[in-house]
Amino acid sequence: MSISLVNGRFASSIDIDSRGLAYGDGLFETVLVNEGRALWLGEHLQRLSRGASRLQIPCDVAAITADCERLLADFCAGDAILKIVLSRGVVGRGYSPLPAKTQRIISLLPAPASSRQHWHKGVALGICQTKLARQPLLAGIKHLNRLEQVLAAGEMQRRGYIDGLVFDEAGKLIETTRSNVFIGTAGRLFTPGLNDCGVSGIMRQQLMVAAEALGMPVKEAAIEMSVLREADEVFICNSVIGIWPVTKIECMHRAPGPICRRLQREFESHFYA
Amino acid sequence: MSISLVNGRFASSIDIDSRGLAYGDGLFETVLVNEGRALWLGEHLQRLSRGASRLQIPCDVAAITADCERLLADFCAGDAILKIVLSRGVVGRGYSPLPAKTQRIISLLPAPASSRQHWHKGVALGICQTKLARQPLLAGIKHLNRLEQVLAAGEMQRRGYIDGLVFDEAGKLIETTRSNVFIGTAGRLFTPGLNDCGVSGIMRQQLMVAAEALGMPVKEAAIEMSVLREADEVFICNSVIGIWPVTKIECMHRAPGPICRRLQREFESHFYA
Repeated sequence: MSISLVNGRFASSIDIDSRGLAYGDGLFETVLVNEGRALWLGEHLQRLSRGASRLQIPCDVAAITADCERLLADFCAGDAILKIVLSRGVVGRGYSPLPAKTQRIISLLPAPASSRQHWHKGVALGICQTKLARQPLLAGIKHLNRLEQVLAAGEMQRRGYIDGLVFDEAGKLIETTRSNVFIGTAGRLFTPGLNDCGVSGIMRQQLMVAAEALGMPVKEAAIEMSVLREADEVFICNSVIGIWPVTKIECMHRAPGPICRRLQREFESHFYA
Repeated sequence: MSISLVNGRFASSIDIDSRGLAYGDGLFETVLVNEGRALWLGEHLQRLSRGASRLQIPCDVAAITADCERLLADFCAGDAILKIVLSRGVVGRGYSPLPAKTQRIISLLPAPASSRQHWHKGVALGICQTKLARQPLLAGIKHLNRLEQVLAAGEMQRRGYIDGLVFDEAGKLIETTRSNVFIGTAGRLFTPGLNDCGVSGIMRQQLMVAAEALGMPVKEAAIEMSVLREADEVFICNSVIGIWPVTKIECMHRAPGPICRRLQREFESHFYA
């Protein structure tokens, strides 16, 4: 069951000629809701707004916030997912982004299944054959052009993995199909730079701030397979799952590491009351 | 005014949770309709089918054909555009392409404004700053992830150009924002290879077959700016506009060339009765 507001009105469908459908001409956010409260909603809307100015789509943050608050107040006292889609709206055929009335689509979706076990015990990841193309104009933002993630997630699904690491064409580690990645080596913490591809995650940003405050500044770096092999610990994060230790990558085993456990302690109360 | 069939039923909207909207997880075709007849519909459906097997989306060509024929028979005796969208359909949140009931969306749209003047006199093109990312897994097919084209078309719109040439990151000419490109040099005909990016156009394919039959085989090649500068003639094509000579690229002038004119004669009856 889900319930949606499209430009402030209850709806379960959108116009066929939405540019969101025609060209993926828009952005989205997926926000965790715990006991009726949206986690880091302000940060999600900041990223949405940044993406919107990159794509030159008008973004009415106040209206989106109001729709989110309305859905939460009227329909959700418990756990859920709040999904926000901003599309350039409806205009005639053709790629040119003529001025259009944007569509904001705010949906309240069921909470994901508990992943507490993965938080504690860690997960095994595969390595995706699908490589990410390098497109600086779209890197970092969370746009609606997600076929690369669909292809990579399809690979992992067929191989029975819960998620998988994704590299760019040049052989640099970028992220997983839906999370950011951190590696700890000799007491130092690294995460891939996202100037050419990848999504700049809200949890990634929170985690970098927290790590810095704990005296473990995170360095953005070009991470190749050889660096990953030498890593003492690997963990992944996003704003829905929190932080998961990675205990296996294909045939390489790792124990959950001390840096991961330290950061999990910082954030556990956000994800598990 | 437009009219649409979604999985064979009249509709003007689609479910909010369509993967077409969420991830651009699908494909499309844009078919010219002349006096009630869809031009190269079979070839369009072949490309759709090829794209669908690349993305592992089931594609019921017979059902799509039946929907197209129904719209044409009941609503169109004149000129129009037939737009076909195939989306993986609706499944729960998450990139993994779980088996879903696909959505086929067939729409009859108004005919484009006449471009006969461009066919005869040619057009001026800009050069887009937006570069295409190289992604062999998605190259050639006409998928719904079109933000690069939206960005490039936006640039050209702001600069007052009808269309613009687009290069890949490596500096190779690929296409325009919505057409394929051919260049004639010393009596030989070249077009960019499309293994890394770009859309393999139906008109491009028709034109290559016709050129071969006329004793002018087209060579797929890596075309850099320097080659473009030396070209005797440049023309662009797609299955809606036909073939347009390019008479100006930024500051470089060219007259419509003899190869372009020869090929236009082959196809004129398809576009102008």
